[in-house]
Amino acid sequence: MKFISIIGSTGSIGTQTLELVRANEDLAVTALAAGSNVTLLEQQIREFHPRIAVLYDRQSADELRLRVSDLDVKVFSGPEGLVEAAVEPSCSLVVTAVVGMIGIRPTIAAIQAKKDIALANKETLVTAGHLIMPMAEQYGVSILPVDSEHSAIFQCLQGEDAKEVDSLIITASGGPFRKKTQKELTAVTLEDALKHPNWSMGKKITIDSATLVNKGLEVIEARWLFGVDFEQIKVVVQPQSIIHSMVQFKDGGVKAQLGTPDMKLPIQYALFYPERRFLPGERLDFAALGSISFEEPPTDVLKGLSFAYDAGRTGGSMPTVLNAANEKAVALFLQEEISFLEIYQLIEDAMNAHHVIENPSLEEVLETEQWVYEFIESR
Amino acid sequence: MKFISIIGSTGSIGTQTLELVRANEDLAVTALAAGSNVTLLEQQIREFHPRIAVLYDRQSADELRLRVSDLDVKVFSGPEGLVEAAVEPSCSLVVTAVVGMIGIRPTIAAIQAKKDIALANKETLVTAGHLIMPMAEQYGVSILPVDSEHSAIFQCLQGEDAKEVDSLIITASGGPFRKKTQKELTAVTLEDALKHPNWSMGKKITIDSATLVNKGLEVIEARWLFGVDFEQIKVVVQPQSIIHSMVQFKDGGVKAQLGTPDMKLPIQYALFYPERRFLPGERLDFAALGSISFEEPPTDVLKGLSFAYDAGRTGGSMPTVLNAANEKAVALFLQEEISFLEIYQLIEDAMNAHHVIENPSLEEVLETEQWVYEFIESR
Repeated sequence: MKFISIIGSTGSIGTQTLELVRANEDLAVTALAAGSNVTLLEQQIREFHPRIAVLYDRQSADELRLRVSDLDVKVFSGPEGLVEAAVEPSCSLVVTAVVGMIGIRPTIAAIQAKKDIALANKETLVTAGHLIMPMAEQYGVSILPVDSEHSAIFQCLQGEDAKEVDSLIITASGGPFRKKTQKELTAVTLEDALKHPNWSMGKKITIDSATLVNKGLEVIEARWLFGVDFEQIKVVVQPQSIIHSMVQFKDGGVKAQLGTPDMKLPIQYALFYPERRFLPGERLDFAALGSISFEEPPTDVLKGLSFAYDAGRTGGSMPTVLNAANEKAVALFLQEEISFLEIYQLIEDAMNAHHVIENPSLEEVLETEQWVYEFIESR
Repeated sequence: MKFISIIGSTGSIGTQTLELVRANEDLAVTALAAGSNVTLLEQQIREFHPRIAVLYDRQSADELRLRVSDLDVKVFSGPEGLVEAAVEPSCSLVVTAVVGMIGIRPTIAAIQAKKDIALANKETLVTAGHLIMPMAEQYGVSILPVDSEHSAIFQCLQGEDAKEVDSLIITASGGPFRKKTQKELTAVTLEDALKHPNWSMGKKITIDSATLVNKGLEVIEARWLFGVDFEQIKVVVQPQSIIHSMVQFKDGGVKAQLGTPDMKLPIQYALFYPERRFLPGERLDFAALGSISFEEPPTDVLKGLSFAYDAGRTGGSMPTVLNAANEKAVALFLQEEISFLEIYQLIEDAMNAHHVIENPSLEEVLETEQWVYEFIESR
C-alpha cells in the first residue's frame, strides 16, 4: 500500500489524483489539504478517510471540523496546517497541487521529512528552485513532475544520460490568442481568455496559457528540474497538444512523449514512477489525427516567454517578481479590473522596478513576493 | 579502443559505419567483408588496416589478395570467409550489414563467439528469429538494431519495462507509390520505383520500400527483436520520415524517436550503445518543418504489409518464403524481366505453393530458400 498526501485536493490536479486513488486499490490517502471548499473536502474525507484534513482558511476549517466530528480525522488550518499535511508520518509521497507560492513551505517540509514530491505547483521551482533542488538531493528525495510538459521530458530522459542532452523542446498549444495582433488583443475579454483550445484546467492557469506566462514559468521550472541552461530550452508551438514535449540529444536524435490531452497520465506516472500502469481512456489514433503541426512561438505581442527568459537569466529574486506580478495581475484580470494587455504592463513595471537579490533565502523570496504585491496595489 | 568487424563494408550501411570509424578515434576495424567490390575494399583496407578482409566472390578475393600483398592482412573468400570476419578474436561487435540470407551464418557464428551484433541484415531475424533470439540470450549477446525504425523503438524502450508495452508503432514513408491505383501501378517503371522520397539506400531496399515488403519484413523483425505479438505491431504512414517509430505503453503514453533521415544516427547508436555521442549533421527544426502527417498504410494494392502479417502469423518457414520470393522477384524486376505488380504475384504464388515447416532448423530455413528460388525459376 502506498500512502500519499495531497496539498490542493479540491483543485483540478487534486480531484484527478483522487480519481486515480479510487481506481488503484494499493493507493491510499493520509492527508488532504485545500483552500476553503468545505463541501468538497468533506466529501473527499468521507470517501478517502485521510488521517489529516486541512483547510487553509481558518473559518472554513472550523466549519469542516464540526461537519466531520463523527470521523477520526484531525482538522488543521493555515500555513502550518499545510505543513502538517505534508509531513504526515505514514505518507511516502506528497502531491503538491496547490496554486501559488503558498506551495513552497509545505514542499520544503515534505522534502525535509524525506517524502517524494509529485510536483504540480509551478511556483515552488520558479521562485525557489535554487533552494529546493539541492535540498531534494541532500535528503535523497525524488521531485517527480506532474505538469504534462515536464512529465514528458522526464519520461524521455528515462534510460538516458543527462550529460548527453543537447536541449529540451517544450511544446506549447499557443493558447487561444497565438495569432492575434496587438490591436486585436486590446479588445479580448475574460471570456475569450478562458477558452483554452485543448486542456481543461483551472482559471488562473488558463489565463497564464493565453498570456504564455505559463509556458515561460515552465521554462524556468525546466531549468531547475533538469539542470540545464536557458540556452538549452526551446519552445515550439504544437497547437494540437499531442506532443507533450521533447528532448534532443547530442547525436541529433530527438525523443518525444505524446498522448491525448489527459492530465491523469502524468499524474499517474508520478504516483507509480517508474511503473506504468494501465490507464483507461482514449488512445492516440495517428491516421485519424491526420497531422501534427509546429510554429515558432509568438513573442512580440504575447510577452510571457520573453519575460520568463529575461527573469530566468537575471536569476536571483527576479523569477519571483515575474511570478508574483503575474499572479496579482491575473487576479485583477479575473476580477475584470484590468485588460488582458495590462497583465504584461504590470509584470513589466514590477520587473523594471525591482532590485534583484542574488541567491535569495526563502524569507527573501517571500519578502520579494510581498514587495511585488504592495508595488502593484500601490499603483 | 573498441574493435569492430563489418560484414558488408562496401554497401550503404558499411560505408557509413566506416565514416563513423573515421570520426571516432576509439573505434577500429579488425575485419571487413564484402561481396565482389575489389576496388572499394582495397581502399578500405588501406585506410582502416583490418586484420582480415573477405570478398565473398572467390575470383574477386584472388584479385584482392594480389593487390594487397604489400599489407599485413589475411584475405578470405566464400561463406567461410564471412564467418572468419564475424569471429575475428579481437573484435567485440559485428556489424552485419550484408543484404540477404547470406548474413545468417556469420551472425550465428558471431553470437556463438560472444560478439555483440549491430544488426542491419533484415533476413537474419525475418527467417531465423526463432533461432537467433534464444541463442543471443544463451550467449549473453546484445542484438542492437541498426534499421532506423527498430533503432527508434529500441531507443524508446530505454528505461522502460518491456512488460508495460502496449504496442509498437512502426512508421513508413509509404514509398513513391502509396497513392497509386492498381491501374497506375501496372505502368510504373524501374526508374519510378527507384525514386525513394526521403532515404538514399541500396536498390533492393528501395524497391522493397516501394512494394511495402520492406515495411512488412520490419514488422516480422520487430516481432523477434522486441518479443511482442503481431497484434501489438501497428504501421502508420508518416510521409516525411521524421518520426522513425514509436512505442505506446499501457498507460496510453506514447514515446517517439525523431530525427532527420540520416542512417548515421542509428548506426552510431548501435556502435556506442548505451552512450550517445555528438554527431555532426542537420538538426530537426520543427517550426521550419511545419507539420508531420499520418495516414493509414495502403494495403489493398501495395500488398507488402498484408503478406508479412500473413507470413508472420503462419510462422515456421513461411517468412523465409516471403523473403526469398521477394528477393528473387526484386532481382527479376531490377533486371526488368518482370513488372512491378508481378513482384506480388511471384510472392503470392510461392506462399500458396509452400508446405510450412514448423520451427525450422537453420538447414530447413536455407532449404526453404532454395525451394523458393527453384520454384520461381521453374515458372
